[in-house]
Amino acid sequence: MKAMVDLNCDMGESFGMYKLGLDEEAVKYISSANVACGYHAGDPQVMAHTVKIAVASGVAVGAHPSFPDLMGFGRRQMDASPEEIRNYVIYQTGALAAFVQAGGARLQHVKPHGAMYNMAAADKKIARALAEAIYAVDKELIFLVLANSEMERASEEVGLRYAREVFADRNYNADGTLVARSNPQAVIKDSDLVAQRMIEIIKTGQIRAVDGSVFAVKADSVCLHGDTPGAIEHMKHLRRAILDAGIKITPMKEISHV
Amino acid sequence: MKAMVDLNCDMGESFGMYKLGLDEEAVKYISSANVACGYHAGDPQVMAHTVKIAVASGVAVGAHPSFPDLMGFGRRQMDASPEEIRNYVIYQTGALAAFVQAGGARLQHVKPHGAMYNMAAADKKIARALAEAIYAVDKELIFLVLANSEMERASEEVGLRYAREVFADRNYNADGTLVARSNPQAVIKDSDLVAQRMIEIIKTGQIRAVDGSVFAVKADSVCLHGDTPGAIEHMKHLRRAILDAGIKITPMKEISHV
Amino acid sequence: MKAMVDLNCDMGESFGMYKLGLDEEAVKYISSANVACGYHAGDPQVMAHTVKIAVASGVAVGAHPSFPDLMGFGRRQMDASPEEIRNYVIYQTGALAAFVQAGGARLQHVKPHGAMYNMAAADKKIARALAEAIYAVDKELIFLVLANSEMERASEEVGLRYAREVFADRNYNADGTLVARSNPQAVIKDSDLVAQRMIEIIKTGQIRAVDGSVFAVKADSVCLHGDTPGAIEHMKHLRRAILDAGIKITPMKEISHV
Amino acid sequence: MKAMVDLNCDMGESFGMYKLGLDEEAVKYISSANVACGYHAGDPQVMAHTVKIAVASGVAVGAHPSFPDLMGFGRRQMDASPEEIRNYVIYQTGALAAFVQAGGARLQHVKPHGAMYNMAAADKKIARALAEAIYAVDKELIFLVLANSEMERASEEVGLRYAREVFADRNYNADGTLVARSNPQAVIKDSDLVAQRMIEIIKTGQIRAVDGSVFAVKADSVCLHGDTPGAIEHMKHLRRAILDAGIKITPMKEISHV
Repeated sequence: MKAMVDLNCDMGESFGMYKLGLDEEAVKYISSANVACGYHAGDPQVMAHTVKIAVASGVAVGAHPSFPDLMGFGRRQMDASPEEIRNYVIYQTGALAAFVQAGGARLQHVKPHGAMYNMAAADKKIARALAEAIYAVDKELIFLVLANSEMERASEEVGLRYAREVFADRNYNADGTLVARSNPQAVIKDSDLVAQRMIEIIKTGQIRAVDGSVFAVKADSVCLHGDTPGAIEHMKHLRRAILDAGIKITPMKEISHV
Repeated sequence: MKAMVDLNCDMGESFGMYKLGLDEEAVKYISSANVACGYHAGDPQVMAHTVKIAVASGVAVGAHPSFPDLMGFGRRQMDASPEEIRNYVIYQTGALAAFVQAGGARLQHVKPHGAMYNMAAADKKIARALAEAIYAVDKELIFLVLANSEMERASEEVGLRYAREVFADRNYNADGTLVARSNPQAVIKDSDLVAQRMIEIIKTGQIRAVDGSVFAVKADSVCLHGDTPGAIEHMKHLRRAILDAGIKITPMKEISHV
Repeated sequence: MKAMVDLNCDMGESFGMYKLGLDEEAVKYISSANVACGYHAGDPQVMAHTVKIAVASGVAVGAHPSFPDLMGFGRRQMDASPEEIRNYVIYQTGALAAFVQAGGARLQHVKPHGAMYNMAAADKKIARALAEAIYAVDKELIFLVLANSEMERASEEVGLRYAREVFADRNYNADGTLVARSNPQAVIKDSDLVAQRMIEIIKTGQIRAVDGSVFAVKADSVCLHGDTPGAIEHMKHLRRAILDAGIKITPMKEISHV
Repeated sequence: MKAMVDLNCDMGESFGMYKLGLDEEAVKYISSANVACGYHAGDPQVMAHTVKIAVASGVAVGAHPSFPDLMGFGRRQMDASPEEIRNYVIYQTGALAAFVQAGGARLQHVKPHGAMYNMAAADKKIARALAEAIYAVDKELIFLVLANSEMERASEEVGLRYAREVFADRNYNADGTLVARSNPQAVIKDSDLVAQRMIEIIKTGQIRAVDGSVFAVKADSVCLHGDTPGAIEHMKHLRRAILDAGIKITPMKEISHV
């Protein structure tokens, strides 16, 4: 079978007068969009517009829920209970799903944003609350999870479809966690090296950690950034390299697991 | 055929620490609940709880969207465009629908709240924006409209299902509009008179205006209040009187029109 | 010199349509009010009204700032930086100070609310950020602090005026911290015992911990609750007992330290 | 006496992650900054930073309050009562004043933003509510008003200091109102013509309307835009032309009236 991968990117992070990201450009190079749902970014106007350009480009749409923290862009941990987090996710997922339905498509996946993502990756109870919330809204939804995290385990427990993501431009520790951003080796800037690493992960299910050791990681989706300098050039480059390596780029619904 | 009517009431208007309304009591006497969606009232915790008690009581659930104005409880008109209003309604309707799906049921209807209701009743473009928003999210949804208003006309134009509501305790002008609250005759306080008038509307499709004239008004649903002094007693009384008159009380989905 | 104490209580916690607390009653029995500033509770209408009734009753007004978390009533810890907390406190303190000035009085103090209070009591950096914020806005303001906490130490370091508060109805551990609410002995319900303990603290500067040992605690102000069942009766009782013991009740500006 | 004028510009309109405007550049060419206060734009971090750069540049700071409508950037009229508007202005003015005090300066003025500005220019009651709010907070504050508007008249009635502003790049009707933006002649794009018109207003107190007639208008302050393409170049050009015409540029506190 031909190797396949999904390329995902955060989108719809504008709000009111405020513009963020290069969505009109980024949408050309990805297969799945994680769309902000009004809590850390995005508003109903932005959501309607983002869904429209994604659907028009054949990009599958997912919800990107977060904490109610517009001031902090959802990047600050909050001491919310698993039940509160469950209900925040149901609320935001439903809100975005309605725009997708109004746009003639169907919501594909859910990926938590920022602090909620980090908490769910490490905390069993929060990961479980998220998996149950998504399953309760629609059993067919895919949970886009950090590979090897509590989110992956929670999906399996709940019987929820999931897809595992890796980060294109990040270095990993030998235990599979990301090298912290405070470490100068956290981010890989060489586009060719990024592409080579991603192709290796997709084809072999293995990657070299920052200490030189090799570990296993299954990648169903690669997370790209659409708001950094040179982001669009990096996207184009990686997309071209993946296609040239004979790998098919396709929305995660063709790749996800239960 | 036996006469039928729906009894609807606003619910889920609490927020965080703040409690409003007597939802646990009111839910026993109605057939449809209009549940706040986080813009003028309600938060994800409150929405989850409200849907739960409604579903447990066999009460059908509708979305009660409004302007983003928690400080003004959605009662202040805002100069939002029809497109903005459309997207506010899609957002809130989707958010609530997800809680209903998670609760094992299906969203029945949408009724705008406060200033948005008043604007939609009188303004053709806003009424149309609402009808199109609801239809776009789910063609099966019912638009709960003020009888004889622009909302009713917009539903017919769009081909959207709708149900017409009347207000149990309000006097009407000869042209079918409600007597303004500034007029001492606006509200009818005599429970027996309220019941008698509602039974007359349901059975005959006619009601006596404040000037003594009689006009036609079709009532598919009667709007009750759950947050005024004596509200629960009035509900019980009206429900009993309607049942005693041989009228069936049932969710609006059995009564609505296209 | 005659023994003196301030009685403080949270007020102005309503928001829009939502009413919380018994401010009109509570204001009769206290000498200082901690008024919510719009982040966890309170809105400009509520703030104007609360300041008005406090000033009319001769009660001194303080700001009660918190995290931007209306949904969680400011009770959830947030991973905000000391600089963010500093700016949240400046913002809210200034907003309330303007209402006090418009009411013909002068802001007396600042007491953080909920999660921000708990974090500042235990975390040196956050306590310092708060003390510096208050000092920067107005050198004459008083920081109302938990006795023996990091807030007290930060006030001394910054050279800020402060007053130390104790909780009327709470039991203390031998190290001066409050017995956790999860412990059945956390709250003292016997009004006479509460009054006796408060009089002892004020007069002797000592209190008996839950294990029977005695420790020193200086009390410039006693924190009362205005929103629990029986709250007003407890206030009246304690106030009467304190006056009968020959202790003067007065706003903390007559008692505070630098 | 040498002719004088103030140059004012909106600043501090960023929010959280979202950047808007070229404040670091604009601050070099103006004498007064209108700083957003958290309702339509701005947050405590942004306010602290904006005040800092303004004070460091010797630019006087004013509050720029608005409706609570971040989603609509304060540009949508809301049906708020004069009392609500009064309290919104007190709240926001106080919040900003605290940052100015913390920055070692003193708040100079208040200019309403967007829809609130337009409503106050035309509506006597709202203009009066604003003037009274500003006066109540601090009698020394200056109300920055549209010349010849209800705001100017309200200031005189209340005894509040005020300064009159004109718009550098806008055409006027013969009755002194601005040519509506829907009219192609609304905006003047020729920098030299803009400069010539402003110098004429400042020196003669007269300006030519779009129909060729001449009318009287006193200009204490000229409103510049900092967020349009070429904004900084226009600022530099106008500033240079005004100085070359022998006119002194100075904060409005040296020019305002009672």
